[in-house]
Amino acid sequence: MVGAGLIGTSVALALTEQGRAVTLGDLSPERVEQAIGRGAGRAWDGQEQAPVVVAAVPPGATAALIATLQQAVPEASFTHVSSVQSSVQRAVEALGCDLGSICGGHPMAGSERSGPGAASAELFVGRSWAVCPSGQTSARALRGVRELAESLGATTVTLSAAEHDQAVALVSHLPQVAASAVAALLPGARYVSELAGPGLSDTTRIAASDPALWVDVLSLNAGQLSPLVRALAEDLLAVAEALTALSGDPAEPGGHLGRQQQALAALSSLLERGNTGRALVPVARGTGVRGQA
Amino acid sequence: MVGAGLIGTSVALALTEQGRAVTLGDLSPERVEQAIGRGAGRAWDGQEQAPVVVAAVPPGATAALIATLQQAVPEASFTHVSSVQSSVQRAVEALGCDLGSICGGHPMAGSERSGPGAASAELFVGRSWAVCPSGQTSARALRGVRELAESLGATTVTLSAAEHDQAVALVSHLPQVAASAVAALLPGARYVSELAGPGLSDTTRIAASDPALWVDVLSLNAGQLSPLVRALAEDLLAVAEALTALSGDPAEPGGHLGRQQQALAALSSLLERGNTGRALVPVARGTGVRGQA
Repeated sequence: MVGAGLIGTSVALALTEQGRAVTLGDLSPERVEQAIGRGAGRAWDGQEQAPVVVAAVPPGATAALIATLQQAVPEASFTHVSSVQSSVQRAVEALGCDLGSICGGHPMAGSERSGPGAASAELFVGRSWAVCPSGQTSARALRGVRELAESLGATTVTLSAAEHDQAVALVSHLPQVAASAVAALLPGARYVSELAGPGLSDTTRIAASDPALWVDVLSLNAGQLSPLVRALAEDLLAVAEALTALSGDPAEPGGHLGRQQQALAALSSLLERGNTGRALVPVARGTGVRGQA
Repeated sequence: MVGAGLIGTSVALALTEQGRAVTLGDLSPERVEQAIGRGAGRAWDGQEQAPVVVAAVPPGATAALIATLQQAVPEASFTHVSSVQSSVQRAVEALGCDLGSICGGHPMAGSERSGPGAASAELFVGRSWAVCPSGQTSARALRGVRELAESLGATTVTLSAAEHDQAVALVSHLPQVAASAVAALLPGARYVSELAGPGLSDTTRIAASDPALWVDVLSLNAGQLSPLVRALAEDLLAVAEALTALSGDPAEPGGHLGRQQQALAALSSLLERGNTGRALVPVARGTGVRGQA
Protein backbone atom coordinates (compact mmCIF):
# COMPACT_ATOMS: atom_id res chain seq x y z
CA MET A 1 0.00 0.00 0.00
CA VAL A 2 1.54 3.26 -1.04
CA GLY A 3 -0.31 6.30 0.22
CA ALA A 4 -1.41 6.39 3.86
CA GLY A 5 -4.33 8.77 3.38
CA LEU A 6 -7.99 8.08 4.06
CA ILE A 7 -8.39 5.43 1.36
CA GLY A 8 -5.00 3.76 1.66
CA THR A 9 -5.17 3.54 5.44
CA SER A 10 -8.75 2.25 5.32
CA VAL A 11 -7.77 -0.54 2.90
CA ALA A 12 -4.73 -1.38 5.02
CA LEU A 13 -6.77 -1.45 8.24
CA ALA A 14 -9.35 -3.79 6.72
CA LEU A 15 -6.72 -6.15 5.28
CA THR A 16 -4.77 -6.21 8.53
CA GLU A 17 -7.98 -7.07 10.41
CA GLN A 18 -8.33 -10.05 8.05
CA GLY A 19 -4.90 -11.20 9.15
CA ARG A 20 -3.20 -10.31 5.87
CA ALA A 21 0.32 -8.87 5.89
CA VAL A 22 0.27 -5.21 4.81
CA THR A 23 3.27 -2.96 4.30
CA LEU A 24 2.71 0.77 3.99
CA GLY A 25 4.62 3.58 2.35
CA ASP A 26 3.97 7.31 1.99
CA LEU A 27 5.99 10.41 1.17
CA SER A 28 5.15 11.54 4.68
CA PRO A 29 6.74 9.41 7.43
CA GLU A 30 4.29 10.99 9.92
CA ARG A 31 1.33 9.63 8.02
CA VAL A 32 2.84 6.14 7.85
CA GLU A 33 3.49 6.31 11.58
CA GLN A 34 -0.07 7.46 12.26
CA ALA A 35 -1.54 4.71 10.08
CA ILE A 36 0.64 2.05 11.72
CA GLY A 37 -0.33 3.41 15.13
CA ARG A 38 -3.94 2.70 14.15
CA GLY A 39 -3.08 -0.90 13.31
CA ALA A 40 -2.82 -0.60 9.53
CA GLY A 41 0.24 -2.86 9.09
CA ARG A 42 3.95 -2.09 9.14
CA ALA A 43 6.27 0.23 7.23
CA TRP A 44 7.42 -0.75 3.76
CA ASP A 45 11.22 -0.79 3.44
CA GLY A 46 11.10 0.17 -0.23
CA GLN A 47 12.26 -3.28 -1.33
CA GLU A 48 9.96 -5.90 0.10
CA GLN A 49 7.89 -7.67 -2.54
CA ALA A 50 4.09 -8.07 -2.55
CA PRO A 51 1.61 -9.80 -4.87
CA VAL A 52 -0.61 -6.72 -5.15
CA VAL A 53 0.48 -3.09 -4.84
CA VAL A 54 -2.12 -0.37 -4.36
CA ALA A 55 -1.20 3.20 -5.28
CA ALA A 56 -3.54 5.30 -3.13
CA VAL A 57 -2.32 8.79 -3.95
CA PRO A 58 -4.03 11.74 -5.69
CA PRO A 59 -4.97 11.07 -9.33
CA GLY A 60 -2.32 13.38 -10.76
CA ALA A 61 0.46 11.55 -8.90
CA THR A 62 -0.75 8.01 -9.55
CA ALA A 63 0.88 7.13 -12.88
CA ALA A 64 4.37 8.31 -11.96
CA LEU A 65 4.16 6.40 -8.70
CA ILE A 66 3.17 3.19 -10.49
CA ALA A 67 6.07 3.64 -12.94
CA THR A 68 8.48 3.90 -10.01
CA LEU A 69 6.95 1.00 -8.11
CA GLN A 70 7.15 -1.29 -11.13
CA GLN A 71 10.93 -0.99 -10.82
CA ALA A 72 10.91 -1.77 -7.08
CA VAL A 73 8.31 -4.57 -7.08
CA PRO A 74 8.59 -6.05 -10.56
CA GLU A 75 6.53 -9.20 -9.97
CA ALA A 76 3.51 -7.46 -8.44
CA SER A 77 0.25 -6.52 -10.05
CA PHE A 78 -0.73 -2.90 -9.57
CA THR A 79 -3.94 -1.07 -8.97
CA HIS A 80 -4.85 2.41 -7.85
CA VAL A 81 -7.87 4.21 -6.45
CA SER A 82 -8.03 7.21 -8.74
CA SER A 83 -11.30 9.13 -9.13
CA VAL A 84 -10.32 9.61 -12.78
CA GLN A 85 -9.22 6.60 -14.81
CA SER A 86 -8.54 7.68 -18.41
CA SER A 87 -5.86 10.21 -17.55
CA VAL A 88 -4.02 7.66 -15.39
CA GLN A 89 -4.25 5.08 -18.16
CA ARG A 90 -2.88 7.55 -20.75
CA ALA A 91 -0.08 8.51 -18.36
CA VAL A 92 1.05 4.94 -17.58
CA GLU A 93 1.09 4.29 -21.34
CA ALA A 94 3.14 7.45 -21.94
CA LEU A 95 5.56 6.49 -19.16
CA GLY A 96 6.23 3.10 -20.77
CA CYS A 97 4.89 1.07 -17.83
CA ASP A 98 4.26 -2.67 -18.10
CA LEU A 99 0.55 -2.39 -18.90
CA GLY A 100 -0.28 -6.06 -18.33
CA SER A 101 0.27 -5.83 -14.59
CA ILE A 102 -1.88 -2.69 -14.14
CA CYS A 103 -5.64 -2.67 -13.53
CA GLY A 104 -7.29 0.58 -12.49
CA GLY A 105 -9.78 0.68 -9.65
CA HIS A 106 -11.89 3.24 -7.81
CA PRO A 107 -13.75 2.61 -4.57
CA MET A 108 -16.98 4.64 -4.52
CA ALA A 109 -16.49 5.51 -0.86
CA GLY A 110 -14.60 8.10 1.06
CA SER A 111 -15.28 11.06 3.25
CA GLU A 112 -15.11 14.82 3.20
CA ARG A 113 -12.42 14.28 5.83
CA SER A 114 -8.97 13.13 4.80
CA GLY A 115 -5.84 11.53 6.20
CA PRO A 116 -5.17 8.35 8.16
CA GLY A 117 -7.04 9.69 11.20
CA ALA A 118 -10.34 9.53 9.29
CA ALA A 119 -9.76 5.99 8.02
CA SER A 120 -12.04 3.06 8.83
CA ALA A 121 -11.83 -0.65 8.08
CA GLU A 122 -15.59 -0.50 7.36
CA LEU A 123 -15.31 2.26 4.76
CA PHE A 124 -15.96 -0.01 1.77
CA VAL A 125 -18.62 -2.33 3.19
CA GLY A 126 -21.63 -2.31 0.89
CA ARG A 127 -20.08 0.25 -1.47
CA SER A 128 -19.32 -0.09 -5.15
CA TRP A 129 -15.76 -0.48 -6.39
CA ALA A 130 -15.22 0.35 -10.04
CA VAL A 131 -12.71 -1.95 -11.76
CA CYS A 132 -11.32 -0.60 -15.03
CA PRO A 133 -9.07 -2.99 -16.94
CA SER A 134 -7.45 -1.71 -20.13
CA GLY A 135 -7.11 -3.81 -23.27
CA GLN A 136 -3.66 -4.83 -22.02
CA THR A 137 -4.57 -5.73 -18.43
CA SER A 138 -3.73 -9.36 -17.58
CA ALA A 139 -6.27 -11.72 -16.00
CA ARG A 140 -4.06 -11.89 -12.92
CA ALA A 141 -4.07 -8.11 -12.42
CA LEU A 142 -7.84 -7.95 -12.93
CA ARG A 143 -8.39 -10.77 -10.44
CA GLY A 144 -6.12 -9.02 -7.92
CA VAL A 145 -8.31 -5.89 -7.82
CA ARG A 146 -11.58 -7.79 -7.74
CA GLU A 147 -10.43 -10.01 -4.88
CA LEU A 148 -9.13 -6.99 -2.97
CA ALA A 149 -12.39 -5.06 -3.38
CA GLU A 150 -14.61 -8.00 -2.53
CA SER A 151 -12.56 -8.91 0.53
CA LEU A 152 -13.25 -5.39 1.83
CA GLY A 153 -17.00 -5.87 1.49
CA ALA A 154 -17.42 -3.88 -1.74
CA THR A 155 -19.30 -4.89 -4.88
CA THR A 156 -17.21 -4.62 -8.03
CA VAL A 157 -18.50 -2.97 -11.21
CA THR A 158 -16.28 -3.64 -14.23
CA LEU A 159 -16.29 -0.98 -16.95
CA SER A 160 -13.86 0.82 -19.23
CA ALA A 161 -11.89 3.86 -18.10
CA ALA A 162 -13.93 6.08 -20.43
CA GLU A 163 -17.26 4.70 -19.16
CA HIS A 164 -16.05 5.17 -15.61
CA ASP A 165 -15.02 8.77 -16.14
CA GLN A 166 -18.31 9.64 -17.80
CA ALA A 167 -20.31 8.02 -14.99
CA VAL A 168 -18.36 9.56 -12.10
CA ALA A 169 -18.53 13.00 -13.73
CA LEU A 170 -22.27 12.71 -13.12
CA VAL A 171 -22.52 10.76 -9.86
CA SER A 172 -19.51 12.17 -8.02
CA HIS A 173 -17.86 15.20 -9.61
CA LEU A 174 -21.04 17.13 -10.47
CA PRO A 175 -22.43 16.73 -6.91
CA GLN A 176 -19.09 18.01 -5.58
CA VAL A 177 -19.27 21.12 -7.76
CA ALA A 178 -22.92 21.71 -6.85
CA ALA A 179 -22.31 21.29 -3.12
CA SER A 180 -19.32 23.63 -3.21
CA ALA A 181 -21.21 26.22 -5.27
CA VAL A 182 -24.20 26.23 -2.86
CA ALA A 183 -21.90 26.46 0.18
CA ALA A 184 -19.87 29.22 -1.50
CA LEU A 185 -22.96 31.47 -1.40
CA LEU A 186 -23.35 31.21 2.39
CA PRO A 187 -20.55 33.42 3.75
CA GLY A 188 -21.75 36.91 4.61
CA ALA A 189 -25.45 36.07 4.70
CA ARG A 190 -27.47 36.54 7.90
CA TYR A 191 -28.95 33.76 10.06
CA VAL A 192 -27.14 30.94 8.22
CA SER A 193 -25.90 29.14 11.32
CA GLU A 194 -29.07 29.92 13.27
CA LEU A 195 -31.53 28.61 10.69
CA ALA A 196 -29.55 25.88 8.91
CA GLY A 197 -31.45 22.62 8.92
CA PRO A 198 -30.66 19.10 7.82
CA GLY A 199 -31.39 19.87 4.15
CA LEU A 200 -28.58 22.40 3.97
CA SER A 201 -26.37 20.18 6.07
CA ASP A 202 -26.69 17.18 3.75
CA THR A 203 -26.53 19.08 0.48
CA THR A 204 -23.29 20.83 1.52
CA ARG A 205 -21.54 18.05 3.47
CA ILE A 206 -19.02 17.31 0.73
CA ALA A 207 -18.27 21.02 0.32
CA ALA A 208 -15.89 20.41 3.25
CA SER A 209 -13.69 18.25 0.98
CA ASP A 210 -10.02 19.04 0.34
CA PRO A 211 -9.79 21.72 -2.41
CA ALA A 212 -6.33 20.64 -3.63
CA LEU A 213 -7.43 17.03 -4.16
CA TRP A 214 -10.62 18.12 -5.90
CA VAL A 215 -8.97 20.65 -8.22
CA ASP A 216 -6.84 17.70 -9.32
CA VAL A 217 -9.87 15.41 -9.81
CA LEU A 218 -12.11 17.97 -11.53
CA SER A 219 -9.44 19.20 -13.90
CA LEU A 220 -8.38 15.65 -14.89
CA ASN A 221 -12.00 14.88 -15.77
CA ALA A 222 -12.74 18.32 -17.22
CA GLY A 223 -13.75 17.05 -20.64
CA GLN A 224 -16.51 14.82 -19.24
CA LEU A 225 -17.58 17.20 -16.49
CA SER A 226 -17.78 20.50 -18.35
CA PRO A 227 -20.99 19.78 -20.35
CA LEU A 228 -22.72 18.42 -17.22
CA VAL A 229 -21.93 21.53 -15.19
CA ARG A 230 -23.13 23.65 -18.10
CA ALA A 231 -26.39 21.67 -18.29
CA LEU A 232 -26.92 22.14 -14.56
CA ALA A 233 -26.25 25.87 -14.85
CA GLU A 234 -28.68 26.21 -17.74
CA ASP A 235 -31.40 24.34 -15.85
CA LEU A 236 -30.86 26.67 -12.91
CA LEU A 237 -31.00 29.74 -15.14
CA ALA A 238 -34.38 28.52 -16.37
CA VAL A 239 -35.52 28.14 -12.76
CA ALA A 240 -34.33 31.68 -12.00
CA GLU A 241 -36.34 32.95 -14.99
CA ALA A 242 -39.41 31.08 -13.78
CA LEU A 243 -39.02 32.53 -10.29
CA THR A 244 -38.67 36.03 -11.71
CA ALA A 245 -41.91 35.54 -13.62
CA LEU A 246 -43.59 34.33 -10.42
CA SER A 247 -42.39 37.21 -8.28
CA GLY A 248 -44.63 39.67 -10.14
CA ASP A 249 -48.35 39.99 -9.47
CA PRO A 250 -50.36 38.48 -12.36
CA ALA A 251 -53.27 40.86 -11.72
CA GLU A 252 -51.10 43.97 -12.04
CA PRO A 253 -50.35 45.66 -15.35
CA GLY A 254 -47.27 43.90 -16.73
CA GLY A 255 -48.13 40.69 -14.90
CA HIS A 256 -48.84 37.82 -17.26
CA LEU A 257 -50.98 34.99 -16.06
CA GLY A 258 -49.94 32.73 -18.92
CA ARG A 259 -46.27 33.31 -18.17
CA GLN A 260 -46.88 32.51 -14.52
CA GLN A 261 -48.62 29.25 -15.42
CA GLN A 262 -45.64 28.33 -17.58
CA ALA A 263 -43.30 29.20 -14.73
CA LEU A 264 -45.20 27.00 -12.27
CA ALA A 265 -45.11 24.16 -14.78
CA ALA A 266 -41.35 24.61 -15.18
CA LEU A 267 -40.77 24.42 -11.42
CA SER A 268 -43.04 21.43 -11.13
CA SER A 269 -41.25 19.67 -13.96
CA LEU A 270 -37.83 20.21 -12.38
CA LEU A 271 -39.01 18.91 -8.99
CA GLU A 272 -40.66 15.88 -10.61
CA ARG A 273 -37.57 15.07 -12.67
CA GLY A 274 -35.65 15.41 -9.41
CA ASN A 275 -37.95 12.80 -7.83
CA THR A 276 -37.31 10.47 -10.77
CA GLY A 277 -33.56 10.95 -10.59
CA ARG A 278 -33.42 10.57 -6.85
CA ALA A 279 -35.26 7.26 -7.10
CA LEU A 280 -32.22 5.91 -8.99
CA VAL A 281 -29.87 6.58 -6.08
CA PRO A 282 -29.47 3.69 -3.67
CA VAL A 283 -30.20 4.94 -0.17
CA ALA A 284 -28.37 4.01 3.02
CA ARG A 285 -26.24 1.57 1.11
CA GLY A 286 -23.45 0.17 3.18
CA THR A 287 -22.60 0.57 6.80
CA GLY A 288 -19.31 2.38 6.40
CA VAL A 289 -18.30 5.91 7.23
CA ARG A 290 -20.63 8.33 5.46
CA GLY A 291 -18.55 10.09 2.88
CA GLN A 292 -17.96 11.22 -0.64
CA ALA A 293 -17.19 8.82 -3.40
CA MET B 1 -53.53 21.26 15.60
CA VAL B 2 -54.98 21.60 12.13
CA GLY B 3 -53.07 19.65 9.51
CA ALA B 4 -52.07 16.05 10.24
CA GLY B 5 -49.11 15.92 7.90
CA LEU B 6 -45.47 15.33 8.84
CA ILE B 7 -45.05 18.53 10.84
CA GLY B 8 -48.49 18.68 12.44
CA THR B 9 -48.46 15.04 13.49
CA SER B 10 -44.90 15.35 14.83
CA VAL B 11 -45.87 18.36 16.98
CA ALA B 12 -48.99 16.56 18.18
CA LEU B 13 -47.05 13.37 19.01
CA ALA B 14 -44.51 15.32 21.06
CA LEU B 15 -47.15 17.31 22.95
CA THR B 16 -49.20 14.19 23.67
CA GLU B 17 -46.07 12.47 25.02
CA GLN B 18 -45.73 15.42 27.42
CA GLY B 19 -49.24 14.68 28.68
CA ARG B 20 -50.79 17.72 27.02
CA ALA B 21 -54.27 17.45 25.51
CA VAL B 22 -54.09 17.71 21.72
CA THR B 23 -57.01 17.78 19.31
CA LEU B 24 -56.34 17.24 15.62
CA GLY B 25 -58.13 18.27 12.47
CA ASP B 26 -57.38 17.78 8.77
CA LEU B 27 -59.28 17.96 5.49
CA SER B 28 -58.53 14.25 5.18
CA PRO B 29 -60.26 12.06 7.81
CA GLU B 30 -57.86 9.24 6.89
CA ARG B 31 -54.87 11.35 7.90
CA VAL B 32 -56.45 12.31 11.22
CA GLU B 33 -57.21 8.64 11.86
CA GLN B 34 -53.65 7.64 10.99
CA ALA B 35 -52.19 10.34 13.25
CA ILE B 36 -54.47 9.39 16.12
CA GLY B 37 -53.59 5.74 15.57
CA ARG B 38 -49.96 6.76 16.16
CA GLY B 39 -50.89 8.40 19.47
CA ALA B 40 -51.03 12.03 18.35
CA GLY B 41 -54.13 13.01 20.37
CA ARG B 42 -57.81 12.88 19.49
CA ALA B 43 -60.03 14.31 16.75
CA TRP B 44 -61.09 17.93 16.92
CA ASP B 45 -64.85 18.35 16.76
CA GLY B 46 -64.60 21.73 15.04
CA GLN B 47 -65.84 23.61 18.11
CA GLU B 48 -63.65 22.69 21.07
CA GLN B 49 -61.54 25.62 22.27
CA ALA B 50 -57.75 25.62 22.78
CA PRO B 51 -55.24 28.20 24.02
CA VAL B 52 -52.93 27.75 21.02
CA VAL B 53 -53.95 26.68 17.53
CA VAL B 54 -51.30 25.53 15.06
CA ALA B 55 -52.09 25.66 11.34
CA ALA B 56 -49.77 23.05 9.84
CA VAL B 57 -50.88 23.10 6.22
CA PRO B 58 -49.04 24.10 3.03
CA PRO B 59 -48.00 27.78 2.89
CA GLY B 60 -50.54 28.73 0.24
CA ALA B 61 -53.43 27.39 2.34
CA THR B 62 -52.29 28.80 5.70
CA ALA B 63 -53.84 32.28 5.78
CA ALA B 64 -57.33 31.20 4.71
CA LEU B 65 -57.26 28.43 7.31
CA ILE B 66 -56.32 30.87 10.08
CA ALA B 67 -59.12 33.24 9.01
CA THR B 68 -61.62 30.38 9.33
CA LEU B 69 -60.21 29.13 12.62
CA GLN B 70 -60.39 32.57 14.18
CA GLN B 71 -64.15 32.29 13.84
CA ALA B 72 -64.27 28.82 15.42
CA VAL B 73 -61.76 29.37 18.24
CA PRO B 74 -61.97 33.11 18.91
CA GLU B 75 -59.99 33.18 22.17
CA ALA B 76 -56.98 31.22 20.90
CA SER B 77 -53.66 32.52 19.73
CA PHE B 78 -52.59 31.23 16.32
CA THR B 79 -49.36 30.15 14.77
CA HIS B 80 -48.40 28.27 11.65
CA VAL B 81 -45.38 26.42 10.31
CA SER B 82 -45.07 27.99 6.88
CA SER B 83 -41.76 27.86 5.02
CA VAL B 84 -42.59 31.34 3.72
CA GLN B 85 -43.71 34.02 6.16
CA SER B 86 -44.25 37.31 4.30
CA SER B 87 -46.89 35.99 1.94
CA VAL B 88 -48.85 34.48 4.85
CA GLN B 89 -48.61 37.75 6.75
CA ARG B 90 -49.82 39.75 3.73
CA ALA B 91 -52.67 37.30 3.25
CA VAL B 92 -53.93 37.34 6.86
CA GLU B 93 -53.87 41.16 6.66
CA ALA B 94 -55.83 41.09 3.39
CA LEU B 95 -58.34 38.64 4.87
CA GLY B 96 -59.06 40.98 7.79
CA CYS B 97 -57.86 38.56 10.46
CA ASP B 98 -57.31 39.62 14.07
CA LEU B 99 -53.57 40.24 13.74
CA GLY B 100 -52.85 40.48 17.46
CA SER B 101 -53.50 36.79 18.06
CA ILE B 102 -51.30 35.60 15.16
CA CYS B 103 -47.56 34.91 15.39
CA GLY B 104 -45.86 33.14 12.49
CA GLY B 105 -43.45 30.28 13.10
CA HIS B 106 -41.34 27.87 11.07
CA PRO B 107 -39.59 24.80 12.46
CA MET B 108 -36.33 24.21 10.60
CA ALA B 109 -36.90 20.48 10.54
CA GLY B 110 -38.78 18.09 8.36
CA SER B 111 -38.11 15.29 5.99
CA GLU B 112 -38.16 14.49 2.31
CA ARG B 113 -40.95 12.11 3.34
CA SER B 114 -44.39 13.47 4.12
CA GLY B 115 -47.61 12.53 5.89
CA PRO B 116 -48.39 11.32 9.41
CA GLY B 117 -46.59 8.02 8.83
CA ALA B 118 -43.24 9.85 8.65
CA ALA B 119 -43.88 11.89 11.81
CA SER B 120 -41.70 11.68 14.91
CA ALA B 121 -41.99 13.25 18.36
CA GLU B 122 -38.21 13.81 18.17
CA LEU B 123 -38.34 15.74 14.90
CA PHE B 124 -37.65 19.14 16.47
CA VAL B 125 -35.10 18.21 19.14
CA GLY B 126 -32.03 20.39 18.71
CA ARG B 127 -33.45 22.14 15.64
CA SER B 128 -34.09 25.82 15.14
CA TRP B 129 -37.62 27.21 15.13
CA ALA B 130 -38.01 30.60 13.50
CA VAL B 131 -40.52 32.85 15.30
CA CYS B 132 -41.79 35.76 13.21
CA PRO B 133 -44.03 38.22 15.06
CA SER B 134 -45.52 41.08 13.05
CA GLY B 135 -45.83 44.62 14.40
CA GLN B 136 -49.35 43.72 15.58
CA THR B 137 -48.56 40.39 17.27
CA SER B 138 -49.51 40.38 20.97
CA ALA B 139 -47.09 39.32 23.69
CA ARG B 140 -49.38 36.39 24.47
CA ALA B 141 -49.30 35.07 20.89
CA LEU B 142 -45.51 35.44 20.74
CA ARG B 143 -45.11 33.62 24.06
CA GLY B 144 -47.40 30.84 22.84
CA VAL B 145 -45.15 29.99 19.87
CA ARG B 146 -41.95 30.26 21.86
CA GLU B 147 -43.22 27.97 24.60
CA LEU B 148 -44.51 25.49 22.06
CA ALA B 149 -41.20 25.37 20.16
CA GLU B 150 -39.08 25.14 23.30
CA SER B 151 -41.23 22.41 24.80
CA LEU B 152 -40.51 20.34 21.66
CA GLY B 153 -36.75 20.70 22.16
CA ALA B 154 -36.18 23.38 19.53
CA THR B 155 -34.23 26.62 19.87
CA THR B 156 -36.21 29.69 18.85
CA VAL B 157 -34.78 32.39 16.60
CA THR B 158 -36.92 35.53 16.51
CA LEU B 159 -36.78 37.60 13.33
CA SER B 160 -39.08 39.49 10.98
CA ALA B 161 -41.00 37.74 8.20
CA ALA B 162 -38.83 39.48 5.59
CA GLU B 163 -35.59 38.48 7.32
CA HIS B 164 -36.89 34.93 7.61
CA ASP B 165 -37.81 34.68 3.94
CA GLN B 166 -34.45 36.04 2.84
CA ALA B 167 -32.59 33.60 5.10
CA VAL B 168 -34.59 30.49 4.17
CA ALA B 169 -34.29 31.31 0.47
CA LEU B 170 -30.57 30.69 1.01
CA VAL B 171 -30.48 27.92 3.62
CA SER B 172 -33.52 25.89 2.56
CA HIS B 173 -35.04 26.81 -0.80
CA LEU B 174 -31.77 27.14 -2.76
CA PRO B 175 -30.52 23.72 -1.53
CA GLN B 176 -33.87 22.23 -2.59
CA VAL B 177 -33.54 23.67 -6.10
CA ALA B 178 -29.90 22.56 -6.36
CA ALA B 179 -30.64 19.02 -5.15
CA SER B 180 -33.57 18.66 -7.55
CA ALA B 181 -31.54 20.05 -10.46
CA VAL B 182 -28.65 17.63 -9.84
CA ALA B 183 -31.03 14.67 -9.47
CA ALA B 184 -32.93 15.75 -12.59
CA LEU B 185 -29.79 15.07 -14.65
CA LEU B 186 -29.53 11.43 -13.56
CA PRO B 187 -32.31 9.69 -15.52
CA GLY B 188 -31.05 8.04 -18.68
CA ALA B 189 -27.37 8.04 -17.72
CA ARG B 190 -25.46 4.78 -17.40
CA TYR B 191 -24.11 3.24 -14.19
CA VAL B 192 -25.93 5.71 -11.90
CA SER B 193 -27.30 3.12 -9.49
CA GLU B 194 -24.18 0.96 -9.73
CA LEU B 195 -21.68 3.71 -8.93
CA ALA B 196 -23.67 6.09 -6.73
CA GLY B 197 -21.83 6.77 -3.49
CA PRO B 198 -22.69 8.63 -0.32
CA GLY B 199 -21.83 12.03 -1.86
CA LEU B 200 -24.58 11.71 -4.46
CA SER B 201 -26.90 10.21 -1.90
CA ASP B 202 -26.58 13.12 0.52
CA THR B 203 -26.59 15.90 -2.07
CA THR B 204 -29.81 14.58 -3.64
CA ARG B 205 -31.72 13.33 -0.57
CA ILE B 206 -34.16 16.24 -0.53
CA ALA B 207 -34.81 15.84 -4.26
CA ALA B 208 -37.29 13.17 -3.09
CA SER B 209 -39.46 15.93 -1.56
CA ASP B 210 -43.10 16.46 -2.58
CA PRO B 211 -43.18 18.54 -5.81
CA ALA B 212 -46.62 20.07 -5.13
CA LEU B 213 -45.57 21.36 -1.70
CA TRP B 214 -42.32 22.74 -3.05
CA VAL B 215 -43.83 24.48 -6.07
CA ASP B 216 -45.99 26.26 -3.50
CA VAL B 217 -42.99 27.18 -1.28
CA LEU B 218 -40.66 28.22 -4.09
CA SER B 219 -43.22 30.33 -5.89
CA LEU B 220 -44.33 32.11 -2.69
CA ASN B 221 -40.69 33.04 -2.03
CA ALA B 222 -39.83 33.67 -5.68
CA GLY B 223 -38.72 37.26 -5.15
CA GLN B 224 -36.07 36.31 -2.58
CA LEU B 225 -35.05 33.09 -4.27
CA SER B 226 -34.70 34.16 -7.88
CA PRO B 227 -31.44 36.18 -7.52
CA LEU B 228 -29.86 33.39 -5.46
CA VAL B 229 -30.64 30.74 -8.07
CA ARG B 230 -29.29 33.09 -10.73
CA ALA B 231 -26.08 33.63 -8.74
CA LEU B 232 -25.65 29.87 -8.36
CA ALA B 233 -26.23 29.34 -12.09
CA GLU B 234 -23.69 32.00 -12.97
CA ASP B 235 -21.07 30.53 -10.65
CA LEU B 236 -21.65 27.15 -12.29
CA LEU B 237 -21.37 28.63 -15.77
CA ALA B 238 -17.99 30.03 -14.74
CA VAL B 239 -16.97 26.56 -13.53
CA ALA B 240 -18.10 25.06 -16.85
CA GLU B 241 -15.96 27.65 -18.68
CA ALA B 242 -12.97 26.83 -16.50
CA LEU B 243 -13.42 23.11 -17.14
CA THR B 244 -13.65 23.71 -20.88
CA ALA B 245 -10.36 25.60 -20.72
CA LEU B 246 -8.81 22.72 -18.78
CA SER B 247 -10.00 20.02 -21.15
CA GLY B 248 -7.64 21.25 -23.88
CA ASP B 249 -3.93 20.44 -23.91
CA PRO B 250 -1.86 23.53 -22.99
CA ALA B 251 1.08 22.33 -25.07
CA GLU B 252 -0.97 21.99 -28.25
CA PRO B 253 -1.59 24.86 -30.66
CA GLY B 254 -4.66 26.63 -29.36
CA GLY B 255 -3.94 25.54 -25.79
CA HIS B 256 -3.26 28.47 -23.50
CA LEU B 257 -1.21 27.87 -20.41
CA GLY B 258 -2.25 31.19 -18.87
CA ARG B 259 -5.92 30.43 -19.40
CA GLN B 260 -5.45 27.03 -17.80
CA GLN B 261 -3.77 28.59 -14.77
CA GLN B 262 -6.71 30.97 -14.43
CA ALA B 263 -9.11 28.06 -14.74
CA LEU B 264 -7.35 26.09 -12.00
CA ALA B 265 -7.43 29.18 -9.79
CA ALA B 266 -11.16 29.56 -10.43
CA LEU B 267 -11.87 25.94 -9.44
CA SER B 268 -9.67 26.26 -6.40
CA SER B 269 -11.42 29.46 -5.35
CA LEU B 270 -14.86 27.89 -5.63
CA LEU B 271 -13.83 24.85 -3.59
CA GLU B 272 -12.21 27.06 -0.94
CA ARG B 273 -15.25 29.33 -0.70
CA GLY B 274 -17.27 26.13 -0.38
CA ASN B 275 -15.09 25.10 2.58
CA THR B 276 -15.69 28.50 4.19
CA GLY B 277 -19.43 28.32 3.64
CA ARG B 278 -19.70 24.75 4.83
CA ALA B 279 -17.95 25.68 8.06
CA LEU B 280 -20.95 27.91 8.87
CA VAL B 281 -23.37 24.97 8.77
CA PRO B 282 -23.92 23.27 12.12
CA VAL B 283 -23.28 19.57 11.71
CA ALA B 284 -25.21 16.72 13.27
CA ARG B 285 -27.37 19.19 15.11
CA GLY B 286 -30.28 17.54 16.81
CA THR B 287 -31.21 13.95 17.22
CA GLY B 288 -34.45 14.01 15.27
CA VAL B 289 -35.39 12.46 11.98
CA ARG B 290 -32.94 13.54 9.28
CA GLY B 291 -34.90 15.75 6.96
CA GLN B 292 -35.30 18.94 5.06
CA ALA B 293 -35.99 22.21 6.76
